Amino acid sequence: MNMEQPVSSTVYSTDKEHETKDMDIRSLSSSHPQTPNSPHTHKVGIPPKQNLLKEIKATVKETFFADDPLRPFKDQPRSKKFILGIQTIFPILEWGRSYNFTKFQGDIIAGLTIASLCIPQDIGYAKLANLDPQYGLYTSFVPPLIYAFMGSSRDIAIGPVAVVSLLMGTLLENEVDSKKDAETYRRLAFTATFFAGITQATLGFFRLGFLIDFLSHAAVVGFMGGAAITIALQQLKGLLGIKDFTKKTDIVSVLHSVFVSAHHGWNWQTIVIGVSFLAFLLFAKYIGKKNKKLFWVPAIAPLISVIMSTFFVFITRADKQGVQIVKHIEKGINPSSVKEIYFSGHYLPKGFKIGVVAGMIALTEAIAIGRTFAAMKDYQLDGNKEMVALGTMNIVGSMTSCYAATGSFSRSAVNYMAGCQTAFSNIVMSCVVFLTLQFITPLFKYTPNAILAAIIISAVVGLIDFEAAILIWKIDKFDFIACMGAFFGVVFSTVEKGLLIAVSISFAKILLQVTRPRTAILGKLPGTTVYRNIQQYPGATMVQGVLIVRVDSAIYFSNSNYVRERILRWLTDEEEKLKASYQPKIQFLIVEMSPVTDIDTSGIHALEELYKSLQKKDVQLILANPGPVVIDKLYASNFANTIGEDKIFLTVADAVASCSPKLATEV
Amino acid sequence: MNMEQPVSSTVYSTDKEHETKDMDIRSLSSSHPQTPNSPHTHKVGIPPKQNLLKEIKATVKETFFADDPLRPFKDQPRSKKFILGIQTIFPILEWGRSYNFTKFQGDIIAGLTIASLCIPQDIGYAKLANLDPQYGLYTSFVPPLIYAFMGSSRDIAIGPVAVVSLLMGTLLENEVDSKKDAETYRRLAFTATFFAGITQATLGFFRLGFLIDFLSHAAVVGFMGGAAITIALQQLKGLLGIKDFTKKTDIVSVLHSVFVSAHHGWNWQTIVIGVSFLAFLLFAKYIGKKNKKLFWVPAIAPLISVIMSTFFVFITRADKQGVQIVKHIEKGINPSSVKEIYFSGHYLPKGFKIGVVAGMIALTEAIAIGRTFAAMKDYQLDGNKEMVALGTMNIVGSMTSCYAATGSFSRSAVNYMAGCQTAFSNIVMSCVVFLTLQFITPLFKYTPNAILAAIIISAVVGLIDFEAAILIWKIDKFDFIACMGAFFGVVFSTVEKGLLIAVSISFAKILLQVTRPRTAILGKLPGTTVYRNIQQYPGATMVQGVLIVRVDSAIYFSNSNYVRERILRWLTDEEEKLKASYQPKIQFLIVEMSPVTDIDTSGIHALEELYKSLQKKDVQLILANPGPVVIDKLYASNFANTIGEDKIFLTVADAVASCSPKLATEV
Repeated sequence: MNMEQPVSSTVYSTDKEHETKDMDIRSLSSSHPQTPNSPHTHKVGIPPKQNLLKEIKATVKETFFADDPLRPFKDQPRSKKFILGIQTIFPILEWGRSYNFTKFQGDIIAGLTIASLCIPQDIGYAKLANLDPQYGLYTSFVPPLIYAFMGSSRDIAIGPVAVVSLLMGTLLENEVDSKKDAETYRRLAFTATFFAGITQATLGFFRLGFLIDFLSHAAVVGFMGGAAITIALQQLKGLLGIKDFTKKTDIVSVLHSVFVSAHHGWNWQTIVIGVSFLAFLLFAKYIGKKNKKLFWVPAIAPLISVIMSTFFVFITRADKQGVQIVKHIEKGINPSSVKEIYFSGHYLPKGFKIGVVAGMIALTEAIAIGRTFAAMKDYQLDGNKEMVALGTMNIVGSMTSCYAATGSFSRSAVNYMAGCQTAFSNIVMSCVVFLTLQFITPLFKYTPNAILAAIIISAVVGLIDFEAAILIWKIDKFDFIACMGAFFGVVFSTVEKGLLIAVSISFAKILLQVTRPRTAILGKLPGTTVYRNIQQYPGATMVQGVLIVRVDSAIYFSNSNYVRERILRWLTDEEEKLKASYQPKIQFLIVEMSPVTDIDTSGIHALEELYKSLQKKDVQLILANPGPVVIDKLYASNFANTIGEDKIFLTVADAVASCSPKLATEV
Repeated sequence: MNMEQPVSSTVYSTDKEHETKDMDIRSLSSSHPQTPNSPHTHKVGIPPKQNLLKEIKATVKETFFADDPLRPFKDQPRSKKFILGIQTIFPILEWGRSYNFTKFQGDIIAGLTIASLCIPQDIGYAKLANLDPQYGLYTSFVPPLIYAFMGSSRDIAIGPVAVVSLLMGTLLENEVDSKKDAETYRRLAFTATFFAGITQATLGFFRLGFLIDFLSHAAVVGFMGGAAITIALQQLKGLLGIKDFTKKTDIVSVLHSVFVSAHHGWNWQTIVIGVSFLAFLLFAKYIGKKNKKLFWVPAIAPLISVIMSTFFVFITRADKQGVQIVKHIEKGINPSSVKEIYFSGHYLPKGFKIGVVAGMIALTEAIAIGRTFAAMKDYQLDGNKEMVALGTMNIVGSMTSCYAATGSFSRSAVNYMAGCQTAFSNIVMSCVVFLTLQFITPLFKYTPNAILAAIIISAVVGLIDFEAAILIWKIDKFDFIACMGAFFGVVFSTVEKGLLIAVSISFAKILLQVTRPRTAILGKLPGTTVYRNIQQYPGATMVQGVLIVRVDSAIYFSNSNYVRERILRWLTDEEEKLKASYQPKIQFLIVEMSPVTDIDTSGIHALEELYKSLQKKDVQLILANPGPVVIDKLYASNFANTIGEDKIFLTVADAVASCSPKLATEV
């Protein structure tokens, strides 16, 4: 391992004769310390020049078809392709063929369990969206059926959910007053649902599903938590029996509204019913959490509460004491609402806007649920195909008097724990809802609103994910800011503001990442030829006269100036330190380019300017291990020739080896 | 180098006993093939836990103070700090002290040269902004003076420029008709200039200068080229003597307007004067380009053209033949315009909006020029300080009847070539403009508009940078799309649209980069322990039973799902290949994490899911060389313990070495 063997006779001189320095280094690069047996072999590989069309094709494939959805179609006869195509659109045709009695058992039990949970929730969620209770039930009838045929998640439970209901309620109420003009409001809700479906299906069809990834996990945790608090606060109206309640959703207005009405607006009978059943529901939840086998306790508790409280109000006629009741739920299944959708006029753009926002949020929730359970049971889920399924289900829903449906966190978890096997459990649930709509709705007449409020509160409590927030705090402080931003935005302002904050912070993080990439000084780990960040490995030693800088990102227009300035600053800092300790000055600057996956024209400019600046300082620029794309562009731009091809090495160790003979002559 | 020495007695088995596999690997990792003399030494370094406040401080410093502007202030007494502070705001106090006669000579010559170039340009550019000619001259008087005191570029020539004039003209005309309501138009122009200055100074003061880096070089090249074509087309009005000319700037409307007026609207005397002087100017430009020493020929050609053509029109009285002339330029220096700025009312927000856009574009141009020349002469330029200087100059300018000034590409190049040494050349230019305003303006009365048009055309031709566009095409196809998008946007639509396209494509590129990072399969270069991309190094060989994947980006919420799916797809692809050739299946998946500079909560989730999926497939996940931030978060999230600390290695070679004994027992 004779690293300092003087192969070349070139003597390093401190004057400006750069040209003489460039000689005879290529031969050095092969006096490779680790590879004594294979000299002259490994240069930096230059990949074969690619066809432009091929390159574009590869990029498009990686961007839009990263999951290779057409793989099963490859090398199949046409008739088989057709069948596969149909199966792709309707996965039920695929899994249905291997359906058996064991699976059926699981699905029946799971379906009945989620049905018992969804019926009271649906009635409450419809209220959050400022719609009559039957619309919640409608939304649990048609969309799950459609999804069962087209969706590929086996565990998701479809129907109205709290956050989307609140979001739609808030956004719709901004446009139309639901009290004064209930019909227009309802029509706008269907319009928004229609466009939510269109948005979802379009994103899926054009394989733009990755767009929802731009809402970061942290932002979603914060947003969900904030929405849960907001929803719970809204329920104080029902729980305390307050009649005059603010329309705003921020915590300040709501609490003000609650305390102002404390003296005359609260109804003690309502409070007794509401609080006692809330305690019962939370206790059931606690039991379910303690013992996973008792998951069915919190799942059926809401239905039991509804039955008991309805019966109680019916015999005591507490509604005459001011306890507000549901009063009336329309009997019968979904009427058509095709003609109610605004396909033109003033409300079209408004419905479109609300639909896009609600559709995206609904997607985020459904895809997150789908992915979670797919990972737990280890099956593949095509996000884009899911979006098409969810979109279609909402489009059909909007025409059958449903508002925006999506996957529910709480019901999906119950579905999973109850042992669902396929999407058939959604069909079971849908059938139960159908029976409810046909025969049982009149029985809900005396159900107190306070119970619905208690059910909603106990449902949304689960959306506040303290553990996730703590983990986010531990892992990434910036993520935590995004999380808290979204949370406080929703709680103290409005749902939209919170969402906007979440998206903005997520984007700011991406931009910050690409604007200010990390750089590191590398040192040699003693006894190896491995060079690593000296901050991470304090044992690593720097090579005298050589500064090794690693750039940890692609060099693009957004960071090229920063990277250049930062490298020069490392050099200045180091030179000052060396000067102070009377050590020899730096003669070689090695830029380790392994993490530089790409470079654009601005990046090449930055390297050129760096090279010029270094020439003036009499420091030689050397590049180590540029990747295929980078080396290609270094040659295309002629920069490889400018600095000399013999200044580009396969590894940092090779690059250092090339410097050492020259240093040896001087030190 | 006994890589296959069986240190552990653990026998690999294909059944599901993952637990037994995890034993005794740590000891293997030190049977390190390259480091026979130092066993048991190098583990992956875990950097000391950092103080949160320190961490935030470091991030803020790197984001906003990357160029370390406070370095000279460190360890200085207070009085010295004060003097340095004043010098920082007014660099003239610093360079002025070492000013000498040689520098003075250079500055005088350069100043006179750019003055002769700027006077005719100013008059023409004012027309582009739909303002009276004297406002162009005003803008070449006050702003350069302010800049000379506050700016730190030695080569930039300040004044009105073509692109910003066109941009302001277009944006202002959208709000107010310059013909019908010249006063309101002018006042709005000053308001916009004021806010352009405020925008620039604010960005600089809050060290947000990096925001202009988000307009990529490629987009700027396309935008400038498009603007040059648009400006040249606008000049056809003056050059052909057309009276009724469209107000639109797109190429279709303009050419339509030109040809419709061909029969009755063109004035042949104007065409003769215009075209012959345009030929003269372009010829002068050609001479200057051929022989760099004759740079003064194109520099003084415009002034000569003005003098000759004015004299010609004066003696022939061609203005009576329909040759349009300047007629009148207000005599005297800049009047105050403080009271003309709209600080309230209807026009305030409009002026603000236009000012922000114009200010950003002006900044982009000035900073690009400043950086180019600073790199050529190798001096440091603080972009943020420059922005404060440019902003102050425009704020003062807006109060002294100037419109938005910035650095001019063409005049700065002439300034540089004429041998300017400091910003004093701007003061010289400013003095000449002062004398012109005071004494010479009446002489411009008979200057034909066609000459101004010819001067502008010959000036903007230089903004079309074919070579840059070709280089962009060679280096980066996506950049080329951005370049062409901006170009065609400006040419076929409007300046704003082009700008919007340029910014959008630039952002799309960043987002694509973070959504779809590259991944690569690594192989071993024969005779070394170096692992590289097998596509770049076709000689690299894969290790049997081991798949090594490198992820080339930080793993963030925007790409975490993609990265996970992509790694699994590599695995599936490889397994299919192996199956087809009856080779043993893959037992170890090594993820090389050197380029993974950061990871967030979503990234950790993705790794966890990857780990679960691999467990189901009976493949062991191994990580190689995670950086300091990543290893920190792997421990914070407990993922390091989940996969086993002994599954994290310093290098790929170590990781492979840890697998080989087990493979050896089976193969």
